[in-house]
Amino acid sequence: MSALNEFIEFAVHLGHVAAAEILPHFRSQMDVTNKSMSAFDPVTAADRNAEAAIRREIRRVYPHHGVLGEEQGAEPGSSAFTWVIDPIDGTRAFILGQLHWGTLIGLREGERPIVGVMHQPFTGETFVGSEAGGSLRHNGTHRPLVARSHTRLAEAVLCATDPTMFVSREDRDAFERVACRVRGVRYGGDCYTPCLVAAGHADLVIEASLKPWDVQPLVPILHAAGGILTDWSGGSAGSADRMVVASNRALHAEVIELLQQGSR
Amino acid sequence: MSALNEFIEFAVHLGHVAAAEILPHFRSQMDVTNKSMSAFDPVTAADRNAEAAIRREIRRVYPHHGVLGEEQGAEPGSSAFTWVIDPIDGTRAFILGQLHWGTLIGLREGERPIVGVMHQPFTGETFVGSEAGGSLRHNGTHRPLVARSHTRLAEAVLCATDPTMFVSREDRDAFERVACRVRGVRYGGDCYTPCLVAAGHADLVIEASLKPWDVQPLVPILHAAGGILTDWSGGSAGSADRMVVASNRALHAEVIELLQQGSR
Repeated sequence: MSALNEFIEFAVHLGHVAAAEILPHFRSQMDVTNKSMSAFDPVTAADRNAEAAIRREIRRVYPHHGVLGEEQGAEPGSSAFTWVIDPIDGTRAFILGQLHWGTLIGLREGERPIVGVMHQPFTGETFVGSEAGGSLRHNGTHRPLVARSHTRLAEAVLCATDPTMFVSREDRDAFERVACRVRGVRYGGDCYTPCLVAAGHADLVIEASLKPWDVQPLVPILHAAGGILTDWSGGSAGSADRMVVASNRALHAEVIELLQQGSR
Repeated sequence: MSALNEFIEFAVHLGHVAAAEILPHFRSQMDVTNKSMSAFDPVTAADRNAEAAIRREIRRVYPHHGVLGEEQGAEPGSSAFTWVIDPIDGTRAFILGQLHWGTLIGLREGERPIVGVMHQPFTGETFVGSEAGGSLRHNGTHRPLVARSHTRLAEAVLCATDPTMFVSREDRDAFERVACRVRGVRYGGDCYTPCLVAAGHADLVIEASLKPWDVQPLVPILHAAGGILTDWSGGSAGSADRMVVASNRALHAEVIELLQQGSR
């Protein structure tokens, strides 16, 4: 097995390691505490325990690799490789018992995301992407990830997790410039909808107020499927807090053009 | 088996009849046509075929019962019983490959909803409610539906499918009066989130622009769980286009008070 394939299978394994910590808490009575003491920013035992379990497993198998995660921050390694993890992307959906959440596992070589996995343990779906290709693993089958190549802006449905994540007036205006040109807008997706773009079912996601662990694991999944994931200016989204996910280059260009109009 | 139990098991059966028509189209390339020729009101072959299959099965087993459904309208019967069906509640989520959609099957005796079923065929979950009780059937287990009894408004997360369904200024203002008093707002649920209120995971749903088949099948599910489903004035939601779903009476009273403020 090549090094890349080893990393891919280890990332999938980490998704299952997280699942063992997460699923017992899903739809149980939870002790939700507020991470930032602001309203509605919940952290669950599932989140913390899953990240701890993932970090233990990385230390055991790849002790020289770094780790960057939502709950415990950065743990630098002595190699070029860094795992970027979000044990539950979509905590708010998770707490309501909804289904659009998942575990994000990414591997960076330097600054370049080379492996991405999104695992939804309740449905048993695993979206996998790397330079070796992309696939959706479900019920023992592997289906290739192929984003739609022909959808243009007027036919696209624009997906976003939450209208309130566009905090500044500029961000709201930019989102609105796209929203008034599409076929419809749909809220409530978190990491799940970008993966549906990769799988060829959705076309367009615009998000803001993101952290690196929300974005970096998705990059190889989208790229493997022929989709695009960038920041709002069309540049690398690796450390951006705002992202555009598009199923094809022509659609992406239309969206970036509209998002950038206000900044000229 | 009592008549009520027969109806319950038949309603569950209809959910599976629909699933056989729906699942082959879920996440396949679909020929989406516009029902009203307005933007983003899609109808799929899945929707139409599932309703036709459900109607055939009702005619075969209960030929004297009436049927009311989204696709083919009202088919009056010669008895007091009417089946109220929405083959895919949440078509927009369905088309994107998302998971918050389901088949709604209700049975009315006169105007009174007596059986309600929501079946999500991709996850295999069936939410069932009647005077005989409520349960979530999943993977061969039956778990009783019990809504939360203690959540008050300040701790609740307010769920709604889509902010644009509040069309009038009055509706938007009323929704906003509740939204600014809760812990957070979450969009994107359709029939799935009211069922999560019945299951004890969510607390509050406010919707508008509804049809009878979106509402009536949910009533017995909520009532069986100890939850409440009414229109925005606190009255029966049977033929209302706006609904409030709350996990308990105290929360419901707080919400109705706020929704009604503008109309005094």
